[in-house]
Amino acid sequence: MSVIYERVAFIGLGLIASSMIHAGRRAGVQREIAGTARSALTRTIAREDGLCDIVTETAAEAVAGADLVVLCVPVGAMAEVAREIGPHLKPGCTVSDVGSVKRAVIDAVAPHLPENVHFIPAHPLAGTEHSGPRSGFAELFENRYTLIVPEEDTDPEALVRLKRYWTALGANVEMMDAEHHDLVLMVTSHAPHLIAYTMVGVADDLRRVSDQEVIKYSASGFRDFTRIAASDPTMWRDVFLNNRDATMEILGRFIEELMRLQRAIRKGDGDLLFDYFTRTRAIRRGIIEAGQDTAEPDFGRGAKGGRK
Amino acid sequence: MSVIYERVAFIGLGLIASSMIHAGRRAGVQREIAGTARSALTRTIAREDGLCDIVTETAAEAVAGADLVVLCVPVGAMAEVAREIGPHLKPGCTVSDVGSVKRAVIDAVAPHLPENVHFIPAHPLAGTEHSGPRSGFAELFENRYTLIVPEEDTDPEALVRLKRYWTALGANVEMMDAEHHDLVLMVTSHAPHLIAYTMVGVADDLRRVSDQEVIKYSASGFRDFTRIAASDPTMWRDVFLNNRDATMEILGRFIEELMRLQRAIRKGDGDLLFDYFTRTRAIRRGIIEAGQDTAEPDFGRGAKGGRK
Repeated sequence: MSVIYERVAFIGLGLIASSMIHAGRRAGVQREIAGTARSALTRTIAREDGLCDIVTETAAEAVAGADLVVLCVPVGAMAEVAREIGPHLKPGCTVSDVGSVKRAVIDAVAPHLPENVHFIPAHPLAGTEHSGPRSGFAELFENRYTLIVPEEDTDPEALVRLKRYWTALGANVEMMDAEHHDLVLMVTSHAPHLIAYTMVGVADDLRRVSDQEVIKYSASGFRDFTRIAASDPTMWRDVFLNNRDATMEILGRFIEELMRLQRAIRKGDGDLLFDYFTRTRAIRRGIIEAGQDTAEPDFGRGAKGGRK
Repeated sequence: MSVIYERVAFIGLGLIASSMIHAGRRAGVQREIAGTARSALTRTIAREDGLCDIVTETAAEAVAGADLVVLCVPVGAMAEVAREIGPHLKPGCTVSDVGSVKRAVIDAVAPHLPENVHFIPAHPLAGTEHSGPRSGFAELFENRYTLIVPEEDTDPEALVRLKRYWTALGANVEMMDAEHHDLVLMVTSHAPHLIAYTMVGVADDLRRVSDQEVIKYSASGFRDFTRIAASDPTMWRDVFLNNRDATMEILGRFIEELMRLQRAIRKGDGDLLFDYFTRTRAIRRGIIEAGQDTAEPDFGRGAKGGRK
């Protein structure tokens, strides 16, 4: 692979940034990596581990001379970071981000950037329930999508370069406009997270079943919810507060649908339930065919000596 | 391992029965396996694959001379099967089942069994989203719980024998009474399934996001829901219809809680969201410590060459 950006700066050094750094080193896409984080502990870890070539105290120092600046902070912190780095950006550089909502990030960041830089938002659809500078790994983006959200007047050359960069990190790159991105992600990611959080919260509240029991017998479905509901609290708080309209819409639909199933159960309408459950099964098959999951039973996890 | 039952009969030859058969053969816990299924295709497959030593046309024939009879049919079909086999059971044999609800199964089955057999319900907490006679594998029950639900007057010797059998199949065996079982399973399994079905149903309904997009970008949370929502429709219809009161209770709580989060999002109450999401994260840690899941990112699935 060849160098795509001489110097890349990461603001925020959590799961996504550290995975981008590992993947970027492996692919040799930059000569130098600068990075910073708000937490002193994170900066210390990044120095000790040699995660970045340079770890700076401030975002303003990190972006100095960088050809690509990637904002990897929670969505709620984007405006403040953009305000801080705006005056220190190298003319002609590209500023991107990895936030889970795009309209709110554009509104927060764009006003603070000078005219002579390229702002091209992006969102890698990849993650685990872990966070922090030691949670990253080079393979995180492989066989996963990264959505790039250009505006109509985005510089074509800067766009192609950012696409090449993400492709080199292992991602399948696609384009989407900000509004559609926010709706698609609400359905495929944000709503499932909110629902999983709620389900785990309800279980925790139900005093007649002990936590011990919930934990012990979690393999039967609940376990997958807890994995989703263990994701970074700050990130998700910001996602919901910054994609409010789409969240409200889909939650309304969800509650409506849940009440329909509740009514069917109360009335003993087995046909409705059977048809409903048959339809959702077909969607699963589509996902396996699209290569976004495995049909292996139990994902090969859990069972000692289980089939892999 | 030594033989625990001379002859074991399986009524119904789906995922659980075929996994019990593979695990039982590996452990050498029986000398002979008889089996039957309502579907002629399933019986043909079972014969072709040599799944059972004897495949019979009817349940009455299958149980003749069996020391252990395991009912592996959907909960809604249990009463009919019990009525059919009742007069043909070997005196002193044990009848068990693998149904996901226990009170309804006891009410459906017990009245049809003669006095001189031991009825000891059980429920292995294991499964995948696959079904049918070819979906089973010997490792399914390893490191998973099987709950045995004895009555006060259950014969201790018959109970110990059934426990030994399930232990030989690889399961961790625990005892629980029927009512508590149904509540615990509602929280850890039934409700998550119903919620996942609903979420996948809502996504499918939302016309502004194409099915293609939902499938393509499913890795970001939605994927885990679709796996759960791909489980056997007949089985789940029967579970909800036969555990109606507990389902109604937890759905009511769930909707209430969801509305609380919805209100917090509408009002922009970030503190409530952050606290809520932090609390659910702690539950996840408990599950990993209890050994019922792995902390490995992404479960090692998906990424080519990803860490295992």
